[in-house]
Amino acid sequence: MAKDKKLPRPKAQTPKGFQDYFGADVTARSEMLSQIAAVYHRYGFDALETSAVETVEALGKFLPDVDRPNEGVFAWEEDKDWLALRYDLTAPLARVYAQFRNDLPTPYRRYAMGPVWRNEKPGPGRFRQFYQCDADTVGAPSVAADAEICAMLSDTLEAVGIPRGDYVIRVNNRKVLNGVLDRVFDAKSLLNHNLDEQDFDSQVQRAQSTGPGGFEAKRMNVLRTIDKFDKVGEMGVRDLLGKGRLDESGAFIDGVELNTGQIEPVIQFLTAKADTTEETLQNLRNAVGDSATGAGGISELETITDLLGAQGYGPDRIVIDPSVVRGLGYYTGPVYEAELTFEVTDEKGRPRNFGSVAGGGRYDDLVKRFTGQAVPATGVSIGVDRLLAALRAKGRIDLTTVGPVVVTVMDRDRMADYQSMVSDLRNAGIRAEVYLGNPKNFGNQLKYADKRASPVAIIAGGDEFEAGIVQIKDLILGAEIAKNATLEEWKDRPSQYEVPRDQMVAKVRDILDGQN
Amino acid sequence: MAKDKKLPRPKAQTPKGFQDYFGADVTARSEMLSQIAAVYHRYGFDALETSAVETVEALGKFLPDVDRPNEGVFAWEEDKDWLALRYDLTAPLARVYAQFRNDLPTPYRRYAMGPVWRNEKPGPGRFRQFYQCDADTVGAPSVAADAEICAMLSDTLEAVGIPRGDYVIRVNNRKVLNGVLDRVFDAKSLLNHNLDEQDFDSQVQRAQSTGPGGFEAKRMNVLRTIDKFDKVGEMGVRDLLGKGRLDESGAFIDGVELNTGQIEPVIQFLTAKADTTEETLQNLRNAVGDSATGAGGISELETITDLLGAQGYGPDRIVIDPSVVRGLGYYTGPVYEAELTFEVTDEKGRPRNFGSVAGGGRYDDLVKRFTGQAVPATGVSIGVDRLLAALRAKGRIDLTTVGPVVVTVMDRDRMADYQSMVSDLRNAGIRAEVYLGNPKNFGNQLKYADKRASPVAIIAGGDEFEAGIVQIKDLILGAEIAKNATLEEWKDRPSQYEVPRDQMVAKVRDILDGQN
Repeated sequence: MAKDKKLPRPKAQTPKGFQDYFGADVTARSEMLSQIAAVYHRYGFDALETSAVETVEALGKFLPDVDRPNEGVFAWEEDKDWLALRYDLTAPLARVYAQFRNDLPTPYRRYAMGPVWRNEKPGPGRFRQFYQCDADTVGAPSVAADAEICAMLSDTLEAVGIPRGDYVIRVNNRKVLNGVLDRVFDAKSLLNHNLDEQDFDSQVQRAQSTGPGGFEAKRMNVLRTIDKFDKVGEMGVRDLLGKGRLDESGAFIDGVELNTGQIEPVIQFLTAKADTTEETLQNLRNAVGDSATGAGGISELETITDLLGAQGYGPDRIVIDPSVVRGLGYYTGPVYEAELTFEVTDEKGRPRNFGSVAGGGRYDDLVKRFTGQAVPATGVSIGVDRLLAALRAKGRIDLTTVGPVVVTVMDRDRMADYQSMVSDLRNAGIRAEVYLGNPKNFGNQLKYADKRASPVAIIAGGDEFEAGIVQIKDLILGAEIAKNATLEEWKDRPSQYEVPRDQMVAKVRDILDGQN
Repeated sequence: MAKDKKLPRPKAQTPKGFQDYFGADVTARSEMLSQIAAVYHRYGFDALETSAVETVEALGKFLPDVDRPNEGVFAWEEDKDWLALRYDLTAPLARVYAQFRNDLPTPYRRYAMGPVWRNEKPGPGRFRQFYQCDADTVGAPSVAADAEICAMLSDTLEAVGIPRGDYVIRVNNRKVLNGVLDRVFDAKSLLNHNLDEQDFDSQVQRAQSTGPGGFEAKRMNVLRTIDKFDKVGEMGVRDLLGKGRLDESGAFIDGVELNTGQIEPVIQFLTAKADTTEETLQNLRNAVGDSATGAGGISELETITDLLGAQGYGPDRIVIDPSVVRGLGYYTGPVYEAELTFEVTDEKGRPRNFGSVAGGGRYDDLVKRFTGQAVPATGVSIGVDRLLAALRAKGRIDLTTVGPVVVTVMDRDRMADYQSMVSDLRNAGIRAEVYLGNPKNFGNQLKYADKRASPVAIIAGGDEFEAGIVQIKDLILGAEIAKNATLEEWKDRPSQYEVPRDQMVAKVRDILDGQN
């Protein structure tokens, strides 16, 4: 006893931010992953499974939205090597492609699915381990590869049970945004300030520096502001790009200090989405002005639209939408995002758009880190857990598992007979088990069957064995009668049947069929 | 350039002991996991998925064959907590059951599948991440639970493609072994030495100490020796239990220094396996003598045999075999092991038994660590990767994936037309892709199709589009003709067909059907 005190018992707890998944939560996810894999496979993508552990060196510093090196990653030192858990499936793909590029086909289409780990502050609904399901094409410079991923994403969403109309895939192009920014931060744009020549020169110098007041920093701030468009609207963005604004809490948010001439193209860009793709593209042309980068981006969007149109993917499924920015710094061309358009009610009962469940884009420098040669690549990542949550919210996943038929134990010396009953049931493809707890208290056995959501219980004691029969209890019907029926009805609707042992399997199947 | 030198490129390498899995290796495993899950489900087991990361405290020190704490585990410190990657699926189960015991049914049958991590020296075929697939019943004291797991293991092996006769499940009981050891290390056994009374007393004292010469240490040494029975045979074990022996290399291996009276029961135990279960059990009775523990263990084996017999699992599938020891220290009752009985040839071309692919047993103390209350549990772990290797060695898994139909690109301005072709093929359920590399060199496109193991290529250029036709190349037939045919035959057996565009899908299906 004294010894026990010295060794306190370990706490039975998941580490902070981690979670266990039980029963239907596990099987629903693995079923969804197979459905997704089937679509990816049909598109010619091959499976790849890398291990959870990579060298920190190979993973690099591409973790989204994290400016600090190695922050956000679980890492440890092992024999002088730093190892880490992968934080996404793209960094390992870049490593694999660099490592095996001579053996892999080019282009290399691959899909991968599995958990990734983020060393972030856990919060409600935010876990440090979650599933991703990615498809990427490495080595294809053509935007036909981007169009293909968008079409595949559309097929995938429908395959897992999101009907057409309940989702939209929004496509944008980083080059268009860069075109707009080129225009905004062109030295000429400073002329609108009506500065005298000396002031103008010093302004240009300061703007072109990489310091806090420079264009580089301002570009980042513009990007961050664009990301707030959904929240603060056009007027809000105008204020934030200019002098700043009071937020809801009454605090003053500093502006990016652009002048009106600089703000205008950004607003044109953000509000470019029109009823038809042709109009949207025209608005974007106005927004990028004479930027060659911007024009190139718009032409890519046109090609994507044409390719998708030829396969029947119209704007009811895939649209050009300039408000898609995607946080990741490494995107270089088309970016895309799948959004669920139906409303769900949040924890406070308010209706909300479900929002984004998948996103991706073109990135050309991830493999270059290893090989020195730029390799064009594009790909999408599906947030499997969010997608599952969406299907659940819409009642499109049935999470009520049918429990096993439970063979109860009336006489523990008859265990071999009970085992032969479950064996017969299983051989007929029926999920079944014998009660393996302490059989003394029969009420506990029925409580167990209830907890297991068992549809049927089998009961056989000495009398039954002597007569060669079994009692079969329809537990679903029984529960219904107990809830709703009058005593008269109860008598008329038996939920328990007595059948010869050799008709047990047939009767159980009858009952199960009737329950569906 | 100078900057590039300062930042050396990261190495594109998996960390030591880790591995990537490509294509069919991934899909074959996930298919096997679903097959296993289906059997587990039918037996009433529920899915559980815990995260890869646990606290070191919760994992405990149960790593098989590792005496040193925390050795063999990947662990790191995180905000003053020590976290680690799970090294098996049993330790997390114990934690889950302790954490959620009020909500879970009792008994709790659960299955789990996924990777586990061991921080061990990697070697050929030995990886630091590998898959396990477990089923355990927690809270069932009856050996009916052990029998059930053995039956389920047998069904599982047949479900994944190991036919009856190619495997055997061997069952033993730690209590029988403990009975034998009780007899061996009974103080009376020392009497055989013919010591005088004073010497006898001091011998007993020394034997009962926990030091190096004590019974505790000797019991461990006997267990280790028993594990060598397969390798060194009966005479070898006799020598090793006594004075020691020269091994193959000529080195002298110290013996356990037991006397003849002590050695005899161990040998009786090891050679107890007879032609019939009844004979085997009788031999075991002789081996344990009057040890109550031993007798209890034998009675459990009898019950297991009866229960399995009642369900039709005879000695052609499941046998009592005293040579099964199972390394893990935590087993307390029945232990079992699935062995594949067919031969494979090793890397040097020598025939070898494939050996064990699954094992498990009863453990009663894992949950007690957390709660203070002993909870009986029993379960099995399937080494998925070994099982896959076995099926591969027997040619029972087809690892030749059929590649996608490749639509080649003759005219890059026609990309929308090519996309509509793949779209038609995919909508008909045919795996298909358009070539997305640089289309300039047509030879590269055919090489690509070859690398992808494509069964069919579609070819269409300006002439074809004008005439409304496509060329369809049967690549499998083409390769065969190229290898075997004379020029005459080549002319008579075209492997390329010209069909109207609207008959493309039908013709491709024809060719694919003919290839199977």
